Amino acid sequence: MNKAIKLMRSGKPIVIFDAEEREGECDLVFLADGITHHGIALLRKAAGGLICTCITSDLANLIGLPFLEDILSFAREKYPIMKDLTGKRLDYDTRSSFSLTINHKDTRTGIPDIERALTIQEIDNLAKHAEHLVKTHVNLKNNHHSISTLFTENFRSPGHVFLLIGAKDLTETRQGHTELSLALASMVTRRAFPVTVICEMLDDQTGRAMTISKAEKWAQRHETIVLNGEDIRIQFKYWMDTNDLSSSFLSHDEEKGRIKQW
Amino acid sequence: MNKAIKLMRSGKPIVIFDAEEREGECDLVFLADGITHHGIALLRKAAGGLICTCITSDLANLIGLPFLEDILSFAREKYPIMKDLTGKRLDYDTRSSFSLTINHKDTRTGIPDIERALTIQEIDNLAKHAEHLVKTHVNLKNNHHSISTLFTENFRSPGHVFLLIGAKDLTETRQGHTELSLALASMVTRRAFPVTVICEMLDDQTGRAMTISKAEKWAQRHETIVLNGEDIRIQFKYWMDTNDLSSSFLSHDEEKGRIKQW
Repeated sequence: MNKAIKLMRSGKPIVIFDAEEREGECDLVFLADGITHHGIALLRKAAGGLICTCITSDLANLIGLPFLEDILSFAREKYPIMKDLTGKRLDYDTRSSFSLTINHKDTRTGIPDIERALTIQEIDNLAKHAEHLVKTHVNLKNNHHSISTLFTENFRSPGHVFLLIGAKDLTETRQGHTELSLALASMVTRRAFPVTVICEMLDDQTGRAMTISKAEKWAQRHETIVLNGEDIRIQFKYWMDTNDLSSSFLSHDEEKGRIKQW
Repeated sequence: MNKAIKLMRSGKPIVIFDAEEREGECDLVFLADGITHHGIALLRKAAGGLICTCITSDLANLIGLPFLEDILSFAREKYPIMKDLTGKRLDYDTRSSFSLTINHKDTRTGIPDIERALTIQEIDNLAKHAEHLVKTHVNLKNNHHSISTLFTENFRSPGHVFLLIGAKDLTETRQGHTELSLALASMVTRRAFPVTVICEMLDDQTGRAMTISKAEKWAQRHETIVLNGEDIRIQFKYWMDTNDLSSSFLSHDEEKGRIKQW
């Protein structure tokens, strides 16, 4: 875990394997902070799945950002096919983490590596700004308004960066790559609203997800490591307990008019 | 153009450059018919953008499939941020082609190459089935119901295959990669509801979209060709005129109870 923290702090990616009984997939994971177009190129060349950006549910709430499933469910009123197409049971979890797809306003088409990196960096900047506001201001209602406005002023949807929203309390509730990467990033960055970039590692030969043994070989060649979902979950729980912090950052100490410093 | 037709009929990809004054991007393009996991791997390794599946507006209408922008606009009623986030002007066109993201029901997570190829093949099968129904039946209203039901029974949303809907009359209305690839596929397959798979070609070094000169070199090395959007548009117009067919397949000959054979 210490090695993972060191790697991520220096801008390197690590690999997270969720669990055999879940997706059974390895994701390549970066902190959003400092990601460059080289990082995006690595994600699409070495991993090859869908490049997604994970944010915490607290940040999503401040923005007013819904899950995609909620939007699709709401659209049932107007589009009859949505009724039978959405809300289906997944084999590996109760729901998907997908939210909206976005592009930063300064992108053109939004898909080139430079433009995806920009959109992701700007989401990370928004997260930092939101954290600063929450830590220094009492009135969350105004913050909510201001963060929501910053979001809509700076991004458009549909776009090419896929936002995923982590479950409340992260790995306590759900152990997907979204939550695992955010839990790890919480420990790495000590930020209340960490942001991560993840992408499924695929196997060019078999056409399937990359096995954990192949991912381990890849990690060795690239001087990084593979972390197991369960190990992150246990470590995160221990870290939360010993730091006397809840991952539900916003629900604490509001009555005192301030938020604990991480 | 003849070479492109030969290549695509034998399951090979070709490259389409839209136009300097539009996206200015090269897309790698396959017919959906017969695509394998090797094709998906090539799209993500050699192209690297978002792997999308294009269908005609006639098929989308039969399915009852909306544009994503329409769903997001509708969601404004419930989610205030959608109001300022969606419907923004794009530099290169009036709107995006994005519709829903889907997975076939027999996929697990939906992202491995084999699973994306399956989802795309099954969309192609649905398109063939729809064409058969439309050609052999009078009652489009019943067909609409049956194709819509087949779609919702066999797919779920959200998923990992990105559906794009071509403009009505294809390149007459809009000259995006969606329309250009479908116009080309109409000529290649002589199908009324062709289905294509497209992905933006990105440059690993610069972080930008691959230039047309680099794409031409790539095409040479891979024994394929680059087509220009304007050339496809002209050729398609000529082809439609000489074949006395409208791309608006469904609006023709309904009163006679049959559709002209392509």
